[in-house]
Amino acid sequence: MKHYRKELWFEAPTRRAFINITRQVEECLRESSIKQGLLLCNAMHITASVFINDDESGLHHDYEVWLEKLAPHAPVEQYRHNGYEDNADAHMKRQIMGREVVVAVTDGQLDFGTWEQIFYGEFDGRRKKRVLVKIIGE
Amino acid sequence: MKHYRKELWFEAPTRRAFINITRQVEECLRESSIKQGLLLCNAMHITASVFINDDESGLHHDYEVWLEKLAPHAPVEQYRHNGYEDNADAHMKRQIMGREVVVAVTDGQLDFGTWEQIFYGEFDGRRKKRVLVKIIGE
Amino acid sequence: MKHYRKELWFEAPTRRAFINITRQVEECLRESSIKQGLLLCNAMHITASVFINDDESGLHHDYEVWLEKLAPHAPVEQYRHNGYEDNADAHMKRQIMGREVVVAVTDGQLDFGTWEQIFYGEFDGRRKKRVLVKIIGE
Repeated sequence: MKHYRKELWFEAPTRRAFINITRQVEECLRESSIKQGLLLCNAMHITASVFINDDESGLHHDYEVWLEKLAPHAPVEQYRHNGYEDNADAHMKRQIMGREVVVAVTDGQLDFGTWEQIFYGEFDGRRKKRVLVKIIGE
Repeated sequence: MKHYRKELWFEAPTRRAFINITRQVEECLRESSIKQGLLLCNAMHITASVFINDDESGLHHDYEVWLEKLAPHAPVEQYRHNGYEDNADAHMKRQIMGREVVVAVTDGQLDFGTWEQIFYGEFDGRRKKRVLVKIIGE
Repeated sequence: MKHYRKELWFEAPTRRAFINITRQVEECLRESSIKQGLLLCNAMHITASVFINDDESGLHHDYEVWLEKLAPHAPVEQYRHNGYEDNADAHMKRQIMGREVVVAVTDGQLDFGTWEQIFYGEFDGRRKKRVLVKIIGE
């Protein structure tokens, strides 16, 4: 069994952002030389997500509006977590969008449908944060 | 390490549907001859889900009503994604229900609790769509 | 390839609870002797979750309030699932918080960011329920 590990670093200039990381994850897979297996890609922070969806700016705008409706940032005093922080909503948004994706590796490629793309979802940005890529297989 | 891959195809006659795919996934596991490992089952489309829950029609009705409340289909103009399409809500419903499940394989069986069943969740149906099953182990 | 399996049992004294199970999962990993691989940790019940987030009591209170707003328990008659049961809301809360986590194993450790902790999320407690830990690797 082969195994591979890499951290990807991001620093979104805004509080919230969606960043397409598919190319970077594909580069990890190439580096690993793994042809058949499973690839895990997860946020290492609890106010961020890794998820798979469409690379379409209209949809990303819709997600932003929708998540703000389901888990509003303000007023920050509505959340007990916001004693020294103001990011309780980010912990909720991340649960809806998810922490991680597991992707099949087949013939050395991400085994994806036509429109599947991997995103880093930032909900409390403006600082450096990490994503983990771990691949096992052969 | 053994590995196995199969695509399952579905065409729901309605926009939204929940289809129990447990038997088909079990058949994949039998074909793979894998006795110990991990099984990934994911939607290959970004307006569909694979999730594990109860095979109970009342609950599925409740899910339908609940998802429509959290991410309503209409009015379709409320979403920027709906320029040429009308499925923005499907991209949201899929995030709540999830893209994928990872299931333990033990003694050649899906290692499930009593009520766990795997469902394909369709949120933009009336066309052929795929689910991927990938198994690694020994 | 090595593989390891264990069931963890919980009985929350209340309907809903968040229980930090990180130490127990780490103990499983030690027992497995696996140094590189993937660890799956999932609820074996469909009214419970396993998720990764912060061990902060204010946040857990916020989650409780938030989940109750998105998927209210009462009135129980609003859900068709609640014929003989009263736990339809638990099936919904579990979809938002998720069934499972997959964690990278590196150098015999859970490969976690600073604040990542694993929780059992109970939404229909006051009875014995199980979590599965499955690890594969070498």
